[in-house]
Amino acid sequence: MENKTEMVKISSKTLQRLPKYLNYLKKCSNRNIEFISASQMSRDLNIQHTQVRKDLAVTGTQGIPKVGHEVKVLTASIRKFLGWDNLNSAFLIGMGNLGKAICGYEGFKEVGIETVAAFDINPEIIGKRISDTIVLHIDEFKDLAKRMHVQIAILTVPVAIAQEMADICVESGIHAIWNFCPVSLKLPEDMIIENMDIYSSLGTLSRKLKEKTDKGL
Amino acid sequence: MENKTEMVKISSKTLQRLPKYLNYLKKCSNRNIEFISASQMSRDLNIQHTQVRKDLAVTGTQGIPKVGHEVKVLTASIRKFLGWDNLNSAFLIGMGNLGKAICGYEGFKEVGIETVAAFDINPEIIGKRISDTIVLHIDEFKDLAKRMHVQIAILTVPVAIAQEMADICVESGIHAIWNFCPVSLKLPEDMIIENMDIYSSLGTLSRKLKEKTDKGL
Repeated sequence: MENKTEMVKISSKTLQRLPKYLNYLKKCSNRNIEFISASQMSRDLNIQHTQVRKDLAVTGTQGIPKVGHEVKVLTASIRKFLGWDNLNSAFLIGMGNLGKAICGYEGFKEVGIETVAAFDINPEIIGKRISDTIVLHIDEFKDLAKRMHVQIAILTVPVAIAQEMADICVESGIHAIWNFCPVSLKLPEDMIIENMDIYSSLGTLSRKLKEKTDKGL
Repeated sequence: MENKTEMVKISSKTLQRLPKYLNYLKKCSNRNIEFISASQMSRDLNIQHTQVRKDLAVTGTQGIPKVGHEVKVLTASIRKFLGWDNLNSAFLIGMGNLGKAICGYEGFKEVGIETVAAFDINPEIIGKRISDTIVLHIDEFKDLAKRMHVQIAILTVPVAIAQEMADICVESGIHAIWNFCPVSLKLPEDMIIENMDIYSSLGTLSRKLKEKTDKGL
């Protein structure tokens, strides 16, 4: 039966904070700390106490009064809640510098994602292994995604072909797209999309810097 | 004198959308489209009409009734608003795969950021040029940042040393940190910080995928 906590609608801010807690718990574990209180986490992470409690509550774990949470148990329950306890296969499209960086990122396995293949059109890299990931021609994507039941696609292609590639993902039965292209993709409503918009982030940074400079600070 | 629009507090969502408009306008320009209406942009970008109008209004530009915005003029005013019309020098710290990807990203100059040097501790790459960027030892960071009046630091280091590197940025007179490490950095209040949290983004994606899978969809 489904856990009751699974049914609660979780705020995206909470979802964004949970990996931070995991990261913090990992550090505790490395230092052989076995128990941690929400108030200690709050202080160290600079997040309001009530917020930490609320966030942790969604995962269904409860701390022991005056002792706190067992680091191992809390880690496991957050990972389970995030779906990081199962390894999901992902296909990456676009093996440029960013694609290579993503494939080379050791940490992804830890968060439940394994890039099992990368796709490109550059004949110089097709058939090769880069950052331990085999590069295949994009023409093979649809067939392989269906046969391997791959659910996640990582999009790191030039903007001009991003929508076309997203359409291929839809036709291939992909359930979730992690999009690094600075475009709003048109997708069916049931497709999960998570945008990592580097330009927008930079846009915010430059604007704030400009405001500061204009004020003469 | 300062433009009145500069003083308005802009929502972060608007700041995040402005680069999308720029990207769209670039495509228009490539297709020799000279004028574009907010309603056409709204349809093509899948953003509500009133939102597009509001967003564009913050840049201080006004369209011509029944004609729309001149693509060239609108592009220039968004770029100016974002501070992308001036090139800001940035130092990158941590020349791993992600650092290399960022240095190799041609598009950054277009958004007003130029990575003039990268810093690392790996003796194998120090003194070399990677992705056209010179790699220097981190010990040289403070002195060079001060002498060159560098305002932006890009952090792509392992989590374990992120805070230490951020502290060096503070001591070096850096005004803005573009942080790719999945940690909450403790910084002075006047430091501009923009977090590109890859783990949080992945966390959201995995969780949504888990919800979908649990529902048996």
